[in-house]
Amino acid sequence: MDPATLIGLLLALGAVFGALFMGGLNPIGIFLADIPSIILVFGGTIGVTVASGTMPAAINAIKVFIKALTGGAVEDPSENVKLLVDFADVARREGLLALEPRLEEIDDPFFRKGMEMAVDGTDPEDLREQLEIDLDKTRARHKSGAAFFVTAAGFAPAMGMIGTVIGLVDMLGNLDDPSSLGPSMAVAFLTTLWGAFLANFLFAPISNKLKKMSVDELDAKEIVLEGIIAVQAGSNPRAIASMLASFLPPANREDLTEDKKSA
Amino acid sequence: MDPATLIGLLLALGAVFGALFMGGLNPIGIFLADIPSIILVFGGTIGVTVASGTMPAAINAIKVFIKALTGGAVEDPSENVKLLVDFADVARREGLLALEPRLEEIDDPFFRKGMEMAVDGTDPEDLREQLEIDLDKTRARHKSGAAFFVTAAGFAPAMGMIGTVIGLVDMLGNLDDPSSLGPSMAVAFLTTLWGAFLANFLFAPISNKLKKMSVDELDAKEIVLEGIIAVQAGSNPRAIASMLASFLPPANREDLTEDKKSA
Amino acid sequence: MDPATLIGLLLALGAVFGALFMGGLNPIGIFLADIPSIILVFGGTIGVTVASGTMPAAINAIKVFIKALTGGAVEDPSENVKLLVDFADVARREGLLALEPRLEEIDDPFFRKGMEMAVDGTDPEDLREQLEIDLDKTRARHKSGAAFFVTAAGFAPAMGMIGTVIGLVDMLGNLDDPSSLGPSMAVAFLTTLWGAFLANFLFAPISNKLKKMSVDELDAKEIVLEGIIAVQAGSNPRAIASMLASFLPPANREDLTEDKKSA
Amino acid sequence: MDPATLIGLLLALGAVFGALFMGGLNPIGIFLADIPSIILVFGGTIGVTVASGTMPAAINAIKVFIKALTGGAVEDPSENVKLLVDFADVARREGLLALEPRLEEIDDPFFRKGMEMAVDGTDPEDLREQLEIDLDKTRARHKSGAAFFVTAAGFAPAMGMIGTVIGLVDMLGNLDDPSSLGPSMAVAFLTTLWGAFLANFLFAPISNKLKKMSVDELDAKEIVLEGIIAVQAGSNPRAIASMLASFLPPANREDLTEDKKSA
Amino acid sequence: MDPATLIGLLLALGAVFGALFMGGLNPIGIFLADIPSIILVFGGTIGVTVASGTMPAAINAIKVFIKALTGGAVEDPSENVKLLVDFADVARREGLLALEPRLEEIDDPFFRKGMEMAVDGTDPEDLREQLEIDLDKTRARHKSGAAFFVTAAGFAPAMGMIGTVIGLVDMLGNLDDPSSLGPSMAVAFLTTLWGAFLANFLFAPISNKLKKMSVDELDAKEIVLEGIIAVQAGSNPRAIASMLASFLPPANREDLTEDKKSA
Repeated sequence: MDPATLIGLLLALGAVFGALFMGGLNPIGIFLADIPSIILVFGGTIGVTVASGTMPAAINAIKVFIKALTGGAVEDPSENVKLLVDFADVARREGLLALEPRLEEIDDPFFRKGMEMAVDGTDPEDLREQLEIDLDKTRARHKSGAAFFVTAAGFAPAMGMIGTVIGLVDMLGNLDDPSSLGPSMAVAFLTTLWGAFLANFLFAPISNKLKKMSVDELDAKEIVLEGIIAVQAGSNPRAIASMLASFLPPANREDLTEDKKSA
Repeated sequence: MDPATLIGLLLALGAVFGALFMGGLNPIGIFLADIPSIILVFGGTIGVTVASGTMPAAINAIKVFIKALTGGAVEDPSENVKLLVDFADVARREGLLALEPRLEEIDDPFFRKGMEMAVDGTDPEDLREQLEIDLDKTRARHKSGAAFFVTAAGFAPAMGMIGTVIGLVDMLGNLDDPSSLGPSMAVAFLTTLWGAFLANFLFAPISNKLKKMSVDELDAKEIVLEGIIAVQAGSNPRAIASMLASFLPPANREDLTEDKKSA
Repeated sequence: MDPATLIGLLLALGAVFGALFMGGLNPIGIFLADIPSIILVFGGTIGVTVASGTMPAAINAIKVFIKALTGGAVEDPSENVKLLVDFADVARREGLLALEPRLEEIDDPFFRKGMEMAVDGTDPEDLREQLEIDLDKTRARHKSGAAFFVTAAGFAPAMGMIGTVIGLVDMLGNLDDPSSLGPSMAVAFLTTLWGAFLANFLFAPISNKLKKMSVDELDAKEIVLEGIIAVQAGSNPRAIASMLASFLPPANREDLTEDKKSA
Repeated sequence: MDPATLIGLLLALGAVFGALFMGGLNPIGIFLADIPSIILVFGGTIGVTVASGTMPAAINAIKVFIKALTGGAVEDPSENVKLLVDFADVARREGLLALEPRLEEIDDPFFRKGMEMAVDGTDPEDLREQLEIDLDKTRARHKSGAAFFVTAAGFAPAMGMIGTVIGLVDMLGNLDDPSSLGPSMAVAFLTTLWGAFLANFLFAPISNKLKKMSVDELDAKEIVLEGIIAVQAGSNPRAIASMLASFLPPANREDLTEDKKSA
Repeated sequence: MDPATLIGLLLALGAVFGALFMGGLNPIGIFLADIPSIILVFGGTIGVTVASGTMPAAINAIKVFIKALTGGAVEDPSENVKLLVDFADVARREGLLALEPRLEEIDDPFFRKGMEMAVDGTDPEDLREQLEIDLDKTRARHKSGAAFFVTAAGFAPAMGMIGTVIGLVDMLGNLDDPSSLGPSMAVAFLTTLWGAFLANFLFAPISNKLKKMSVDELDAKEIVLEGIIAVQAGSNPRAIASMLASFLPPANREDLTEDKKSA
């Protein structure tokens, strides 16, 4: 659980609403001035976004939305690296089968499935191929999960613009009462405001976060994949530590090589 | 048949028209206020989109449009996986030829053609190459089918803008009667409205849906392809189930491995 | 020769001009109201587009433009497939050299050159490499041919905008005569109109059409390439027909396999 | 030296200035009406573009700019092809070493370096690898050289917009003298004009030209690379001519094969 | 340390502020006229950008920002080439182990780690794979570091636009006092100004600079990688110099080959 999305959205909303208060405006009075405008923009955006995909994709978007708000803290990859180096040590000394009782220590299903296959004696090439298919399909699922929000972020400003043009067309066709001109235009611009607001404070950050989470998760899985292959191949634990360290930022490497030298 | 596109478009239109009613406006009065505006935007968009391709592509767009509205429910890939595992079992016990009578169970032409070739003893490398060409060309056909709507979604707002500028040029050149200013501008903005409306409520959702359907269909075919190759190679049914499970979302895998364990 | 571009452009122009007539406007009066506006947009766009490339590329654009207007009907690939299957039959029965007198039946220079090389006994790997270089370079030439129109479609609206801003700057600097305000703005907006018009009714459809023609032509050549290689390798005509059928849409395949079965 | 960029820019400027004269405006009076506007847009654009890269890249941009204005005429690749075919002939009859005295005929440093290495007996794989590294790095250098102008073309309109918004903010804050409203807005729009003008008449054409020059130069080098490898391998001159002809447009091939037949 | 970013930003700010002074405006009075506008744009942009990623990514952005302002001067790659050629000489004459005492001369951790592995007798394929993983992950880390500023540059103008629309909605809803119209609009446009200003004078140049620094650093590392592999393989120093020279711009090559000839 990474708090960046919740904190960031609170900060952004705080900045907008705080600035309005400071400027003597009433944010709620402005944003909620016209309920039909909100219905038009929100309903229109959700509608055409649902129409852009399939029913399962639309339903999945709800799950994905909650994941994006609260998720993001991939467990530290160094932990997995240490476990893999430890496994390599056992495998070299006592054989791959000696790892069987230790598989329960693994929480990550991808890691556990891969180690199970390795211990079961799956052919190394098949093992790599299958884990890589898993990675590819996970990437495709993440992309498809983020697609709803990418699409919605593109449609929302267009819905706002459509609402504003409808408002202008109506207003320009009925100029009898000049005193209503201002308020009519204010209402017309409300849909532009909501379209930009939904896109920039909701859909775009959520889709960005989902992409970031996907990159982080796949990076972590890639390390695990290479580690499992190396453990099965019976590589030297020190060589595995050094190889997997190449995946980590330089700052996190020290730790691993320190451990290795004292080992 | 997946209802997302029809439901989504109804929801979006409902939101726009409902919001207008709530705001005391007459949606039909606004949208249909000026028939020439609609002709300009719709005719202009369709015209330059047809000009952007070939005649067969333009005719194909009609078929593709109906497919996008109603299609999208790819049969559950798990069914195909189960069938493939079943075939693998038969092939191992009784040989590939024993599968011949069972080919009629297959509905999907790609699956059936591939299995027929496998049973006919096609060289495994030729088999894979030919099925992969089929996938590549299917992908290219899908892309080319969606291209009409991608192009139209790009042209529609430009047509709306051209109509509005023509309206403004005409209006500004004839400012004699100030009372006609408002209605003239209202008519001018109607083309902007129709351009944005056609792009966002018709062409863009349709092209998005077509892309999504293509990804789903090709994912399903990829599983079938790998399964056919494995069945022909005489792989262990359990190994095939495990390999093909890597293509499915984790949630759908349980089912398969359960089956396998009890088998 | 495919009529889509000519028909599409006529349809689009018809829609715009028809709509203007219906609305009581004089399209010619509006579009040709100010000749300098047209010179500015058209001359400016052509100028910076020429400056964006080399002289031979600019001269080539004229040839390519005519090709885009009238071209597009790639001969039915099924014909080539049938010819290749026929050649395979001859080659298997009487040897590759027996094909020499039949090479004159081939119209397409790429097909003929490839078959000549195959009959001349060119090494299969060299043959494939050379035909693939030919495809790659053809693709690059097509891309470079379309580039003029892609670039022009991007510059035209910018030229229109520059003309309008110049008009506004001039008008705002000379507000002495309020009655000239409207007509001055009308003239200023004419360049915006022409910029959008040239981009959307000329440059963009032409560049789109060129890209579509390139894809179709390269698809057709790819089939020929694979067929020539297979003929030279002495493959079974039925296997060639089946392999090449994978390149065609399912609807066009029937035909080929029918032929094969009766053969 | 290819005149397209100079001719194109003159044509474009001529169209704009000519159109203004025809419309009774004074182009110089408009463009140079406010020197601070020009300083803001030009200085701002150059500043943030320099800030977007490193000092050597900024200095390099000046050299590259002059190259873009005057360059573009890659020597006819057919000449190199003829020389390579000639070399192949000599190499086959008298050995690679017999080419040593002829290396001075080569002007292009890439061609000469490659031939020197071939004559020196460099291992064919090393030779190809090294020449391909050279091509890749040349492509990267070209891209990095064009980057300055791509970046500047993106920033210039934004600078123009910033200048205009500053002008509007200032004007709206001081509405005491209505008669100054028009001229103030005129000045404000001048920065928009300059931003669009610099982007479309200077930075974008230059960056486009640089990309085109890079493609042409790399195409020419690719032919030389393949030719050198073939000469070193002692291939048949006719086969080399035919292979290299695949890189040229069909129109330029005749010439080569004619030569070959009479030889 | 490369001064381009600091110099460029000072030049750009100098151009804007200087132009305002020349035009008789007070830049500080304009930019700082309304503090809530600045809070809205800056806070909103930072907030949604933080929400687009994870907490560690947000914290990392501060470090990366300072690096972008002052960094960029990658040590001259020719120095590394000379050192590698020197190492190759030693390795050929005295063996790889003779390089051990010289490893301390290397400052760059990537270079040193690679040479250490080479000297330790790491398998050449493993060595290349590990160094390439290091390069790939460095590229990914750079991309992820620049992502914060790319994202912020995209959000800032949208925040400005949202602020302006809020201002317009408020103003149009309260038209009672016409004299406040101008100043209200001035304040509304201030957020547009700040959004464009932050994007173009801060976030975009920083993200561009980070991308440029990444390309330069990876180019330098690629040379080192190929050099280390060649040194370990015991290649001829002259051949290494020539191979690595292919990575450098022609101007920097002379130097290396001169050295070689006199050696």
